[in-house]
Amino acid sequence: MTDNPLFEVDFEPVGRRVEVPPGADLLDAARQAGIGLASVCGGEGTCGRCRVVMMSGKVSEPVDADRRFLSQLEINAGHRLACRVRVHSDVKVHVPKASLVTDQRLQIGGLARALTVESAIKACVVEAEPPTLRDLRSDLERVTDAVESAYGLRHVTAEPAVIRQLSPTAREHKWSLTAFLHAREIVGFAAPTRRPVGFAVDLGTTKIAGFLVDLETGADLASGGLMNPQISYGEDVISRLVYAGRGPTAAAEIREVVIEGLNNLIASLCEQAGVDKLEVAEACIVGNTAMHHLLLGLPTRQLSVAPFVAASNAAVDVRARDLGLDIAPGAYVHVPPCVGGFVGADHVAMILACDLDKGDRVAVGVDIGTNTEIALCKPGLAYLTSASCASGPAFEGAHIKDGMRAASGAIEAVRITADGPQIKTIGDAPAVGICGSGIIDAVAALHGAGLLNHRGRLVPGGPGLRPGPKGLEYPLALAPQTGIDRDVVITQGDINEIQLAKGAIQTGLEILLESTGTPPEAVDELIVAGAFGSFLNLDSALDIGLLPRLPRAKYSQVGNAAGVGAKALLLSLKERTRAQKIARRTSYIELTTFPGFQRRFALSMWFPTGDRRVREDA
Amino acid sequence: MTDNPLFEVDFEPVGRRVEVPPGADLLDAARQAGIGLASVCGGEGTCGRCRVVMMSGKVSEPVDADRRFLSQLEINAGHRLACRVRVHSDVKVHVPKASLVTDQRLQIGGLARALTVESAIKACVVEAEPPTLRDLRSDLERVTDAVESAYGLRHVTAEPAVIRQLSPTAREHKWSLTAFLHAREIVGFAAPTRRPVGFAVDLGTTKIAGFLVDLETGADLASGGLMNPQISYGEDVISRLVYAGRGPTAAAEIREVVIEGLNNLIASLCEQAGVDKLEVAEACIVGNTAMHHLLLGLPTRQLSVAPFVAASNAAVDVRARDLGLDIAPGAYVHVPPCVGGFVGADHVAMILACDLDKGDRVAVGVDIGTNTEIALCKPGLAYLTSASCASGPAFEGAHIKDGMRAASGAIEAVRITADGPQIKTIGDAPAVGICGSGIIDAVAALHGAGLLNHRGRLVPGGPGLRPGPKGLEYPLALAPQTGIDRDVVITQGDINEIQLAKGAIQTGLEILLESTGTPPEAVDELIVAGAFGSFLNLDSALDIGLLPRLPRAKYSQVGNAAGVGAKALLLSLKERTRAQKIARRTSYIELTTFPGFQRRFALSMWFPTGDRRVREDA
Repeated sequence: MTDNPLFEVDFEPVGRRVEVPPGADLLDAARQAGIGLASVCGGEGTCGRCRVVMMSGKVSEPVDADRRFLSQLEINAGHRLACRVRVHSDVKVHVPKASLVTDQRLQIGGLARALTVESAIKACVVEAEPPTLRDLRSDLERVTDAVESAYGLRHVTAEPAVIRQLSPTAREHKWSLTAFLHAREIVGFAAPTRRPVGFAVDLGTTKIAGFLVDLETGADLASGGLMNPQISYGEDVISRLVYAGRGPTAAAEIREVVIEGLNNLIASLCEQAGVDKLEVAEACIVGNTAMHHLLLGLPTRQLSVAPFVAASNAAVDVRARDLGLDIAPGAYVHVPPCVGGFVGADHVAMILACDLDKGDRVAVGVDIGTNTEIALCKPGLAYLTSASCASGPAFEGAHIKDGMRAASGAIEAVRITADGPQIKTIGDAPAVGICGSGIIDAVAALHGAGLLNHRGRLVPGGPGLRPGPKGLEYPLALAPQTGIDRDVVITQGDINEIQLAKGAIQTGLEILLESTGTPPEAVDELIVAGAFGSFLNLDSALDIGLLPRLPRAKYSQVGNAAGVGAKALLLSLKERTRAQKIARRTSYIELTTFPGFQRRFALSMWFPTGDRRVREDA
Repeated sequence: MTDNPLFEVDFEPVGRRVEVPPGADLLDAARQAGIGLASVCGGEGTCGRCRVVMMSGKVSEPVDADRRFLSQLEINAGHRLACRVRVHSDVKVHVPKASLVTDQRLQIGGLARALTVESAIKACVVEAEPPTLRDLRSDLERVTDAVESAYGLRHVTAEPAVIRQLSPTAREHKWSLTAFLHAREIVGFAAPTRRPVGFAVDLGTTKIAGFLVDLETGADLASGGLMNPQISYGEDVISRLVYAGRGPTAAAEIREVVIEGLNNLIASLCEQAGVDKLEVAEACIVGNTAMHHLLLGLPTRQLSVAPFVAASNAAVDVRARDLGLDIAPGAYVHVPPCVGGFVGADHVAMILACDLDKGDRVAVGVDIGTNTEIALCKPGLAYLTSASCASGPAFEGAHIKDGMRAASGAIEAVRITADGPQIKTIGDAPAVGICGSGIIDAVAALHGAGLLNHRGRLVPGGPGLRPGPKGLEYPLALAPQTGIDRDVVITQGDINEIQLAKGAIQTGLEILLESTGTPPEAVDELIVAGAFGSFLNLDSALDIGLLPRLPRAKYSQVGNAAGVGAKALLLSLKERTRAQKIARRTSYIELTTFPGFQRRFALSMWFPTGDRRVREDA
């Protein structure tokens, strides 16, 4: 047996373990462990879907396949393709949610950043004496005395809500406990072996992404997403602000639905990660200014009328229980600063995650969502410059006849050949609709095939086009091959929606570049952020003019950068200081007041003509 | 007119003004103003009921009558009997609630102490610029900038709940506001002319007394009381702790009833004083350890079983809204420290109000209530020593057949002459029952008349005694002269209740003196505190042995000292530091573990024999 030892592979956060022979690969180990690690190419190192993060142990060096799909930063942080990793010792592997086979492809991973974990929470292991007739100190005093003497602290306190947890917990664990400290204040207690957990949230207008992380190591424990339940009060921020403005009851109602959603998310992530929600000792939530105000219950009336000022932009630490969040009884929620009425903490988090504040290059970050925020940084520019475009929820499937979220059966890629449309659905399931990346592909393909003119009209008589109830339409998948007993189509109306959305973003980008005196070719890096942005087919986006025609190497698609930023802000007090600086240093351009805005917007809805198919790699 | 000017007398807090000729007395002025100032003797200076406090202006010097009813400290603080005061200039007079004729005589005044007002709240007048398209600062930033520059402060903040008030209030008052600061945090806003108000509470097991004060001047604005609504969950603290221990719902329920009571009290005091409840910028609540735990929702299980430890003794500033108190949106409630499981913050407040921590004399403070706390201080004693006696609510009229609160129609004084009982009722109304001071009087009178033996048995055949449904009884008032269509009586059972109560206090006092090596004659001052204690007929109390037979001059009856202490703690940060020291320096004697406790207690239920009628003044 000593000649041929077995190594133990520990998959986190699911906590499943298997023994494998030396040199086995991690994808096989995952299969053996029954973990549904995604692998489209079947372990050939060509699809890049089986991404994992090494937490400990010795494995083989990164190979070319790793470098193809992972940045150097990610590789430094231990990211690898599981199918390329050979095991040389006992190892511990983190499997990101995004790498798991699932019926809904919601972007929750995103940029991974090297970060020194230095959270606001300190876990103190307490060994206190039980009370006796000769030692009548109060429960709290007993525990704070123990914490203070063991950790060299003074004036440690706790709120009544935390003391409420202390008395029974201390007796249950025979006065041996872990206390979670936020500065000098105990915010919660747990069994002596437990670690503090944090909850980071990107609170989007349409989608909410949440991340559970270990506050000591920074390790991901679980992540997941849900649709923002405020959608039933209006898809865009203005209609929600109007609703909240009806009065205190309406404002409370629209706040409570999002809190309920967050509580459900916390409960499900805690279950996934095997932690108790009372061990969640801090949270960090980023969102645009409207989401921020609705979450905190701030007044919104002045946010929806000129001059559109925030009630407060400042970073704030509010008690989770004041918001109604069900985590550790004294836990705080850190809400980073907003820039102004239209540029929120999510944008600050995106700038931070993408290092746009470093000013070491000309870089543009485009965070595509229901509102699309764009930030530009440039060496020598004292300020970061940002703009916000009302791109709408079309890229998320809304307002599109057969639009849907990126879930099983969604058409995510489209080509048009001489044989007609070639589609790919998520999970290779029968088509039930079309998601954002599929819509962009379809529009680009229709345009490329000459079925769509540059003004965005489907060309009557074009092959495959047919009349529909509201003008021409193009079937992408035909019943009975679809999963919905009818055809999945793209309509003239859908195309118009996409034109509005892409026009808004294109105009924003152009004005931002122009007003900072930056010719497009001077841009060193164009970062496409946001859940949708990471699944977007870049070629199609360039083809329809959504993004400028820069060399492909200048583009990076980083996924949910705001979420990554939220995690960084949860894990590091230094990053919070940095966010403060970013918020102060960011100036905002109101696009609609820019000269010629209307005309530019109208023109930018058209599709590019001319040498559309010229690519850097062609 | 210059030969005979009129002076203006301003009665506060009611704010009524009258003009009187020079040399007029204040009792007359009050009558002229329509103020129902109490005066049993009709202005003869013999009842001491028309007590007022001089706030400004020139008046005649104190006379003997003042000295008979007021301590030197009180006189120094401006207390006077209105009927003895001659007006020599325009004057401003505070009329304590206790001096007003009312249908319920609940003690809410008490000791008045000289105090430098230095509250935790600073009122900052703000003149901010309204937002424009060129000045897009958030509402909060706009106001904190103005506060910071006007008052030389930095890093001023506010919570979302306060910002919720800011946005509409600022617009209503055109950006001219008063901000109430607690340290660097804005806790509320008001119109520019308004001043910060505080709410002090003595939260008793049976009664709650509340005081509204001006946080800048310390002036009383309104005061009032109510029965503790938790009474329906049990009269004594143990039964309430047991109820709360049934589970979180029961604990929340018993907490909510008291919060509801406090909110009603705040609303009524604010109406009296003409202030908005949102102008109440801080509160201070004192109570015994059980009331303290129930109020804060702290765990109570360990408080009701040996070794009876508190969950927390520490002073704490909790958000009013966390407790459910409806005052300024960010306001804190200061809850001073408790000493231990049986000695609470009310006792600390009493010690503070009576200066028992100064150690300049041998002094004993007895705070008579449902639980009676006793504190002893003595020069050279490093610690204050305290004991708690379970005296029960008999003195407050409970467990007494015809017992009642000190309200209109309650028999408050009793003598027995050859003609039978002579009674005095509150408001001279037909008798409807008997309140605490009346019961003590009745027992002392029965004993003095030889109708009650020293063991507490009514003597069969004694004049006026008659058989009742449960043994002998003595009618104090006969129908139809009563207000209840039947006789008001005192029964053998009532006497037994009084014996238990007085025995508990007597035993506590004796043990405290003995265990600190203090012979009774060494006591320089014996302070009787508590609502009941201030209406108590001291002679009767001495006659029945409730209090030790010291020279009368050594006694003072100070009323609600805990309430006065709560006010002092609300008004002065220095007093808070003092309270911390008192709590640390106070040691607690558990009476029931003192050798021979049971026998002492049994004996102390008896009434004194021998030279009962010898008085200092006899």
